[in-house]
Amino acid sequence: MDLDRLGEFGLIARLASHIPHRSRRVVKGIGDDCAVYSQPGGNYLVVTADALIESVHFDLNTTTPEQLGWKTVAVNASDVAAMGAAPRFAVVTLGIPKTTKVNFLDRLYKGLGRACEAFGVDLVGGDTVSTPEHWMLSLTMLGETRKKRLFTRKGAKAGDAILMTGTVGDSALGLQILKSPGKKWSGSPADRKHLIQRHLEPTARVKETAKLAKSRLRVTSMIDVSDGLGQDLGHLLSASEVGAELWEASLPLSKPFENTCIKNGLEAGELALGGGEDYELLFTLKSEDVKKLLRSFVNYGTPVTQIGEVTARQGVVWVRTNGRRQTLRKPAGFNHFKENG
Amino acid sequence: MDLDRLGEFGLIARLASHIPHRSRRVVKGIGDDCAVYSQPGGNYLVVTADALIESVHFDLNTTTPEQLGWKTVAVNASDVAAMGAAPRFAVVTLGIPKTTKVNFLDRLYKGLGRACEAFGVDLVGGDTVSTPEHWMLSLTMLGETRKKRLFTRKGAKAGDAILMTGTVGDSALGLQILKSPGKKWSGSPADRKHLIQRHLEPTARVKETAKLAKSRLRVTSMIDVSDGLGQDLGHLLSASEVGAELWEASLPLSKPFENTCIKNGLEAGELALGGGEDYELLFTLKSEDVKKLLRSFVNYGTPVTQIGEVTARQGVVWVRTNGRRQTLRKPAGFNHFKENG
Repeated sequence: MDLDRLGEFGLIARLASHIPHRSRRVVKGIGDDCAVYSQPGGNYLVVTADALIESVHFDLNTTTPEQLGWKTVAVNASDVAAMGAAPRFAVVTLGIPKTTKVNFLDRLYKGLGRACEAFGVDLVGGDTVSTPEHWMLSLTMLGETRKKRLFTRKGAKAGDAILMTGTVGDSALGLQILKSPGKKWSGSPADRKHLIQRHLEPTARVKETAKLAKSRLRVTSMIDVSDGLGQDLGHLLSASEVGAELWEASLPLSKPFENTCIKNGLEAGELALGGGEDYELLFTLKSEDVKKLLRSFVNYGTPVTQIGEVTARQGVVWVRTNGRRQTLRKPAGFNHFKENG
Repeated sequence: MDLDRLGEFGLIARLASHIPHRSRRVVKGIGDDCAVYSQPGGNYLVVTADALIESVHFDLNTTTPEQLGWKTVAVNASDVAAMGAAPRFAVVTLGIPKTTKVNFLDRLYKGLGRACEAFGVDLVGGDTVSTPEHWMLSLTMLGETRKKRLFTRKGAKAGDAILMTGTVGDSALGLQILKSPGKKWSGSPADRKHLIQRHLEPTARVKETAKLAKSRLRVTSMIDVSDGLGQDLGHLLSASEVGAELWEASLPLSKPFENTCIKNGLEAGELALGGGEDYELLFTLKSEDVKKLLRSFVNYGTPVTQIGEVTARQGVVWVRTNGRRQTLRKPAGFNHFKENG
């Protein structure tokens, strides 16, 4: 069988079956944003690893070494945040083409260092090896959380509100702009620059998850939006064995995103739903707590928006701005072994 | 500046300077076999990461997927063992060429699974991504140890005995045989097969380090032999700010290694000193404890041998079998950004 027939998630499930867990201290293995391991002291350790491969995940013609370093840390910090945990420490392995200049590495490490500082992570070690041709970065990050404040993909119940931090779609549109250097884009260059930056220098919602974990708000499930809103919502819903209504009119879109879509005849809703790498938190909350949550985020700096509702009936109903109700069969998003679709 | 002028260890030192540690919980950062992080419960977590790149670290014409999976786990377990710690859990990132067959991956995971079982590790998660061409595997392993039983490279004192587990040189000679398919080797094919297997399926001295950590034997420093006996001894000695006498006549050589060297006119001592990937423990011990240690390893299954002595005077004196004393300037071994030498 070929990899593209199995797909990334089929692959992960198949591979997980080879590796039984032996220790009771493994609270969660493969299948969430992080694995969870119980510590003797009573807290949980969460652990995640993400690899970035040149020409698959990044292009050195369009990203600076500083941005690459930043992003490598941020995408992992986002996974840690999605568990309700605080990032603690990380190790990085770098596969470096032999022709690399030391100056390039210094700049890469500057970016790693800045992101570590921003997200409260200590980079404690790693491995550097040479590669035949392409860059490879793999970062493993560990975080900690109290047992009671662990957020996972499982736990959403019918009637819960679906919310997300920040805005959605910016990164996907930024990537689209980066990938079409020949295209004549209409609208403001500053808008396009903003979108590109959102793709190359994503943030991780470390402070926001800490705020939620400290509060008494009843968060029932959480995931970060990396593969795309539609696909990640799908992961959360299948882990929770529920469905959802998703409201197009409520999606939090940035001004640069809306403007660029309008000026270039792009379907904002579709792009926001299918595009990946927003690194925002997508979570569900007991509906009685929504008002209190929204109040607590007023003047906080990061918008939080309700974008739908959990339903007992499985599947996602995409409520369009024009009132039409579409059933999303297989949510769109990024699959490493298939073309987007 | 080019990477090959800086070398791997120069590079690591330079990069470490970009990343200050913020938390007091970082007991050790870059510069030992593992980083060390203190846990709330009072134990230490140790963490290590090793990446294996196709055509740099392995060749799919000569290694099976099972062996590749096994070795990826074993090399990290060896780093954990070198800290006196017990492996607990690991995450793996796989960079997979798009043309890979699922059957190949199943076999790779079988190897990962077998090694996890052998060394007591739970594989709890990871990331799978596609690569343009070459395989990439990066594994991060976490282990635990009691604070008092942490072994590091620092701590050897003049007069301490230098010991190692197992035998040295097998893996380097196995690699040499693999890399010269056209060469006519003299001696027994079974010997050569053994040496190749020692290269492709190394063990990690997890049980041996547990035995040492549980004992009252005063181990003063430890490292695993991955870059080569000469080079790794050099790391241990510079961390401890001491020197050593290394006795060629005492080096533990396997029969297949000795036979193959003799039949093919190879210098056994030089090869054992310079070759890498033995994944044996190299450690120092208060000289009064040597007898007791050697007694406790009789009939244990893994040989332990004294191969030298720590000296106050820095540098390594290589005492040849013929009685000559040579000063090793720069120990030989593997440098990822230079040719061996």
